[in-house]
Amino acid sequence: MKNILVLGAGRSASSLIRYLLDNSTAQGWEVTVADISIEMAEKKTSKHKNSRAIGFDIANESERQKEMNVADIIISLLPPHLHHIAALECIRLKKNLVTASYVSSEIKALDKASKEAGIILLNETGLDPGLDHMSAMHIIDRIKKGGGEITGFRSFCGGLVAPESNDNPWGYKFTWNPRNVVMAGQGTAQLIEDKQYKYIPYNRLFIQTELISIAGYGSFEAYANRDSLSYRKHYDLENIPTIIRGTLRMPGFCKAWNAFVQLGWTDDSYSINASNKLTYCQLLEAYLPKGNQAVRQKLADFLREKPDSEVMNKLEWLGIFEDNKIGLKDATPVQILQDLLERKWKLGEKDIDMIVMQHIFDFRQEGKNKRIISSLVVKGEDQVYTAMAKTVGLPLGIAAKLILNNKISSKGVRIPVMKEIYEPVLQELINYGISFKEEEKTGLF
Amino acid sequence: MKNILVLGAGRSASSLIRYLLDNSTAQGWEVTVADISIEMAEKKTSKHKNSRAIGFDIANESERQKEMNVADIIISLLPPHLHHIAALECIRLKKNLVTASYVSSEIKALDKASKEAGIILLNETGLDPGLDHMSAMHIIDRIKKGGGEITGFRSFCGGLVAPESNDNPWGYKFTWNPRNVVMAGQGTAQLIEDKQYKYIPYNRLFIQTELISIAGYGSFEAYANRDSLSYRKHYDLENIPTIIRGTLRMPGFCKAWNAFVQLGWTDDSYSINASNKLTYCQLLEAYLPKGNQAVRQKLADFLREKPDSEVMNKLEWLGIFEDNKIGLKDATPVQILQDLLERKWKLGEKDIDMIVMQHIFDFRQEGKNKRIISSLVVKGEDQVYTAMAKTVGLPLGIAAKLILNNKISSKGVRIPVMKEIYEPVLQELINYGISFKEEEKTGLF
Repeated sequence: MKNILVLGAGRSASSLIRYLLDNSTAQGWEVTVADISIEMAEKKTSKHKNSRAIGFDIANESERQKEMNVADIIISLLPPHLHHIAALECIRLKKNLVTASYVSSEIKALDKASKEAGIILLNETGLDPGLDHMSAMHIIDRIKKGGGEITGFRSFCGGLVAPESNDNPWGYKFTWNPRNVVMAGQGTAQLIEDKQYKYIPYNRLFIQTELISIAGYGSFEAYANRDSLSYRKHYDLENIPTIIRGTLRMPGFCKAWNAFVQLGWTDDSYSINASNKLTYCQLLEAYLPKGNQAVRQKLADFLREKPDSEVMNKLEWLGIFEDNKIGLKDATPVQILQDLLERKWKLGEKDIDMIVMQHIFDFRQEGKNKRIISSLVVKGEDQVYTAMAKTVGLPLGIAAKLILNNKISSKGVRIPVMKEIYEPVLQELINYGISFKEEEKTGLF
Repeated sequence: MKNILVLGAGRSASSLIRYLLDNSTAQGWEVTVADISIEMAEKKTSKHKNSRAIGFDIANESERQKEMNVADIIISLLPPHLHHIAALECIRLKKNLVTASYVSSEIKALDKASKEAGIILLNETGLDPGLDHMSAMHIIDRIKKGGGEITGFRSFCGGLVAPESNDNPWGYKFTWNPRNVVMAGQGTAQLIEDKQYKYIPYNRLFIQTELISIAGYGSFEAYANRDSLSYRKHYDLENIPTIIRGTLRMPGFCKAWNAFVQLGWTDDSYSINASNKLTYCQLLEAYLPKGNQAVRQKLADFLREKPDSEVMNKLEWLGIFEDNKIGLKDATPVQILQDLLERKWKLGEKDIDMIVMQHIFDFRQEGKNKRIISSLVVKGEDQVYTAMAKTVGLPLGIAAKLILNNKISSKGVRIPVMKEIYEPVLQELINYGISFKEEEKTGLF
């Protein structure tokens, strides 16, 4: 028997745990699911014969050492800032670790120590980051092997609601951490296009969008996603003239979201005194220039929108012009907005989520300009086995299986850009309905 | 003899040290000026008979304890983050401390300990914060004593160049920390106007300006200065319907500065790769949307300015449309902009700086609406004894004298809002040409 320790049994753990349990008898696994809430862990294991659910606090040293010591591999879905504790313990105990989180500077600093311990700290092995790396590298390596020179890489991903559950004017419902959605994009996005560096600050991130289309699913709106430049190194595309990563929303979302950016409602750095005594409309007034018009008109003027525009209708649908009281006391603008949106953008009981990903590779091969478009659409099964949970959890589970079965030779702090990982993971994902559709074109783009 | 220890001998220390030395014989003081650079300290003391210049590192414990132990009072002009070390030592050694810096949360937490030690940690005793507190409280207390009810308090301050030295289209030269000028205003300004809270995010801080005028000096442009709301508590004006603090610039400055805010050039969170290989014009291009026009025209379009507008002329004067190379390697946008401006906005050898401050108090007294306008203009003597150095240093020096002469009974972490401090400080400042002019009006405003 091999022991797998899963840290964290939250929303995104469902598909991972199901995968591990479904494979447990054939593979000879005992799966321990550890969460700060034992009830949460028990709910996810459903008393499966190869499972064990435990209450667990990573900060408790003796508990941590006891459980990690009997594990053969650890899969961490803990909040990102806690991975460092798990990783240090993994080095001490010489246990492999898999996570779906970005490599933090703290984790990065453990590369040498983890190599010396003979282990792999495999990060960014969920959806985005994760499946994006694997599916991109799969094609990048293939193009290079075929003698192609890659001149452009554009990659987009979005966690959305499926068209059949899309029944609000924003075309959006929360399918993952709402706070991250509200805070998304702060800072300056960085990319390169036709050899020209582009820096897009937050105040115009949501207006400098582009449309991309996915056969059978129509158009999506993309805004630039943070630092695309660093991916040149990750993907070994150091001199590529164009590299852009973007986040996908339904068309029209970004321009309306920009209203909150321009208002200042995505600031989390200060509290609104006695916010529970205000209505949303009064809060709006506090963010708008002086004037005698009604708040709705004042906002339209401020945004240079007509009063019945798409943007204004989306805002109106949120109820911000009505006299509803804000539910939170002394809250930051982000907290107030998130609280409102969590009610308005709630995934209904019968709603289905959807993951959309598309890579566009431009390359020159045998004197011809070519383009490969690789697209993925995954829909959720229900509110538990969402597309998000599947696309985050299955890559983690498959990667853990590969490591347990000694199929991975890489050591140290890694992300899944190596063939020995992406090839078998992508292959197995096909069995779960996660497969990219490819289209190749020749000509001028 | 009493020993005064001055920590930090930088630009703003000149007038303070001159004040202390000028008074040293009459008061029986020995003044020790301590700086990380002994040359800097020596330059400021000019071998005055009552002075001692030393090289000094606040982080060196034995040095710190030795020097602070023989001092009767410590005046710190160190960078703000170092005040905490000095304050802790002051508590241990039971020495009074005076600084010109804002009360940090770390310093605030020392209130109880400093009271128990029987000392005062007097902060915010320079210009702004400092003279603003003192001159405002002087009038607030007087209005209240006369039975007036204060309904509005608006307060403005600017460190500018004197009209006779104002020879560039921005009407601005650096007279204090350039980095703070470039970074000024980030976050969301908070104020209250006619009982209506107002929140002004950074992306429109420099367009929601107002004009104020000072007799004999014309108009100045004010943008809101951070959190004005907290001053209600500091000044005991808890239920005041209007409170606004602002920073003054010459008219037209703010709209042009907003170009850098909108471009994203006031971001300090990431570096531009190989920025030394770029011209300013190329950097501009990287921040502008795609298009075939020349960069100057593209920027004008982006800013919705005519090509020959005041804003465009100010930007042109900075040379950003020319093919000059950026001097810094892998620098952040803030570093690149600061480096450019330090050359363009350099205070010339014969230039004179100017401090402008104005408070506007609205109040109701004996059934009448009244307004007091209190204004201060201070010009520098030269490049060493600047208006900035005088207005920062003299309040510090006078406050230290009052403490040494046992005129101050307050203990703990304080700011100079008490009559026992502001009255004698304001009185003595008149001897140095620092005096407010008051104007009182009756009627409706």
